[in-house]
Amino acid sequence: MSTEGLSRRRLLGTGGTAAVAGVAGVAVGATTAGALALRGNAVTDDSAAAGAPGATTPSPALALDAAIPFRGVHQAGIVTPAQDRLHFVALDVVTKDPAQLRGLLEAWTRAAERMTVGAEAAPGGLVGGGPNRAPEDTGEAYGLPASGLTITIGYGPSLFDERFGLAAKKPAALKELPAFAGDQLDPRRTGGDLCIQACANDPQVAVHAVRNLIRLGFGVVAVRWSQLGFGRTSSTSTAQATPRNLFGFKDGTNNLKAEQPEDLAQHVWVAKDDERTGGAWMAGGSYLVARRIRMHIEVWDRTPLQEQEDIIGRDKKEGAPLGQAKEFDALDFAKKGPDGATAIPVDAHVRLAHASRLGGIRILRRGYNFTDGSDGVGHLDAGLFFLAFMRDPEKQFVPMQRALAKADVLNEYIEHNGSAVFACPPGLAEGEHWGQALFA
Amino acid sequence: MSTEGLSRRRLLGTGGTAAVAGVAGVAVGATTAGALALRGNAVTDDSAAAGAPGATTPSPALALDAAIPFRGVHQAGIVTPAQDRLHFVALDVVTKDPAQLRGLLEAWTRAAERMTVGAEAAPGGLVGGGPNRAPEDTGEAYGLPASGLTITIGYGPSLFDERFGLAAKKPAALKELPAFAGDQLDPRRTGGDLCIQACANDPQVAVHAVRNLIRLGFGVVAVRWSQLGFGRTSSTSTAQATPRNLFGFKDGTNNLKAEQPEDLAQHVWVAKDDERTGGAWMAGGSYLVARRIRMHIEVWDRTPLQEQEDIIGRDKKEGAPLGQAKEFDALDFAKKGPDGATAIPVDAHVRLAHASRLGGIRILRRGYNFTDGSDGVGHLDAGLFFLAFMRDPEKQFVPMQRALAKADVLNEYIEHNGSAVFACPPGLAEGEHWGQALFA
Repeated sequence: MSTEGLSRRRLLGTGGTAAVAGVAGVAVGATTAGALALRGNAVTDDSAAAGAPGATTPSPALALDAAIPFRGVHQAGIVTPAQDRLHFVALDVVTKDPAQLRGLLEAWTRAAERMTVGAEAAPGGLVGGGPNRAPEDTGEAYGLPASGLTITIGYGPSLFDERFGLAAKKPAALKELPAFAGDQLDPRRTGGDLCIQACANDPQVAVHAVRNLIRLGFGVVAVRWSQLGFGRTSSTSTAQATPRNLFGFKDGTNNLKAEQPEDLAQHVWVAKDDERTGGAWMAGGSYLVARRIRMHIEVWDRTPLQEQEDIIGRDKKEGAPLGQAKEFDALDFAKKGPDGATAIPVDAHVRLAHASRLGGIRILRRGYNFTDGSDGVGHLDAGLFFLAFMRDPEKQFVPMQRALAKADVLNEYIEHNGSAVFACPPGLAEGEHWGQALFA
Repeated sequence: MSTEGLSRRRLLGTGGTAAVAGVAGVAVGATTAGALALRGNAVTDDSAAAGAPGATTPSPALALDAAIPFRGVHQAGIVTPAQDRLHFVALDVVTKDPAQLRGLLEAWTRAAERMTVGAEAAPGGLVGGGPNRAPEDTGEAYGLPASGLTITIGYGPSLFDERFGLAAKKPAALKELPAFAGDQLDPRRTGGDLCIQACANDPQVAVHAVRNLIRLGFGVVAVRWSQLGFGRTSSTSTAQATPRNLFGFKDGTNNLKAEQPEDLAQHVWVAKDDERTGGAWMAGGSYLVARRIRMHIEVWDRTPLQEQEDIIGRDKKEGAPLGQAKEFDALDFAKKGPDGATAIPVDAHVRLAHASRLGGIRILRRGYNFTDGSDGVGHLDAGLFFLAFMRDPEKQFVPMQRALAKADVLNEYIEHNGSAVFACPPGLAEGEHWGQALFA
């Protein structure tokens, strides 16, 4: 058993706790004052104490199980230290009645807040409605803890068309992404009026959350597409070890982190005086770009190590930039290798995607690995479900992806086959709901 | 935070440890005597000691991370306490050369044994082959612990056709399942010459294992279909809490358990004098039936609680048989409810599937929940990936499924759309490999 091998779980379990604003018992008290009957049990002194800051023994399992505060200046699930599992769903609104949509957004808020503390989707849960009514909660997460669940909502460009009277509210920055060279988009994995990103450390908890929100939306929304992610591919906190993507490389070493508020303000959060991105009603919100990137892993797996490292621009084992020794060493694009060429090749991914080559552009990456069965011709359908948050997609993701689509050697091994963009509103204060600012 | 809520993880982490034959440090020593360089680190005294039986502090995280012995009388991954995540793949052999197939089975054995202790798929791993060769391990699990990984192999009926000279070896009991009423099988999710079941507590570790075996099989095998499972739906040890399926009900309460060796000998393990199921070369092996069962969860979620409970035959919250109070209370099929009808309806699932109604038939269930995106018409593609081990499918699964397909009210809510059967050979003794008994 490797001690280094445990770092991912342990860091999230101990160091990671410090980066979230509360742990289980605390979060319950802080959000809804004990009014919730938790899934399967009431809060007990024992269980609250076990997670309290004063507890003497760090408990990795408990920290992974803990609750993340639902309300705050920003939505949870953006700079929250990335949980290990994802269920993402894009939905279309099928009602024509704005009041129904507003009502659903309010109901979603109540249910989401409950589920993030480990409670059932509605009071009464499995049995509260009595024998002659469908249960208020589907039940598969009954008995499971909060598991770090975050539920993050986004509004797609199409939500602001003529149907719901929201056209005047549409931020200029919220528009479908342009076509990029090499795109092979599948319309069945593209777009959506709304999205819900559920992240948790137990996939059953993430799937349960999405499913119960869908259930609440029956007749108002329908699933357009959905994506399960099984392993985070980025760290969003300095307390987390850098994970690996399905190319086997550490991913997101230089990602923006929760501990860098100035960088986040500059690159991620919408400012209240920025009318282009929504101004006041979007202030503290962010834009989410989702891209389903199929990786041709069978081809990659037959590529020599040196070629893999040259394509990425880092060494595979340590994750160090080529020409350097350690993962977090600075990239030196001028440094020459023994052969006289630059250690980091001119078309390496890290060079093309680096802020210094893109006029300072940075984004907060929060993607997941996926494996969705097989492709029917002998290969796994696997890759990276790229999720990234930013202030303005047109000024950040679009130029970045244009540069990558044009020159990145990695393109021989990947294929973008799903795409969507959403405006994620700011976090909610006590008493607010997701339909409020939208319809105000 | 609910104390009950933690039971699943905690039981697996502490009680569960007792049910497996070793923990990390022990398993490494017992299997390959320190010859393996673990992913990212060598075994240290510290890490070995932390998992050893004498350690003073139970560590839930470590137990979930621990290694399960690869060799033994039976293959691991059958009565091993069910891990939380699954990656299952069915493969077709694409070579015509029996020697190539035998060689692959030998290479798979080496790689599987290494990966189950947390090592890379081959010595040298990420970098051992040097810069001009493809890495011997794809790398995405580098730094991750063993995570309870088990890798279980099965041989499909088609493997014993004329191609590889194995026809004489084919057990009479190994044949494709008959068609059942209501089957809606998709050929792209059906059959296979071989299967690999990888179970682990970290999905990245399970996916890594399958992918590396596929990589080793390039030119010899091709992926026919694969399935990711995110939540176990059965317990296979008395130390595990009963999980819930996507209908929100506890599943597998009366499952066979690792702690019942006599029942397992009767219902799961092939006996050496049973020629029909393979006799000597299959003794200690078992038969695996896989069924992909789509659940129409949206319809189910609008079904009243009482109707749900009548269909299953248990109460939703406790999981108690109807008419009883506790989950593990015995089923009483004669007991009447207040309305004079039997408390457990005549067509309830638990009644139809109960051993007493099926001439004593029992099977070891080891299935997983799945959610595979959406179905294109507004719903999640979700359900139960049913996996079950038994001595003889024709005498166990076939009559059981015939009874269920005919009368089970649950059929209105489910659809079997994938199916396969495999002969899983016995466990390997030191020095043996998966191709040996097959080609002997």
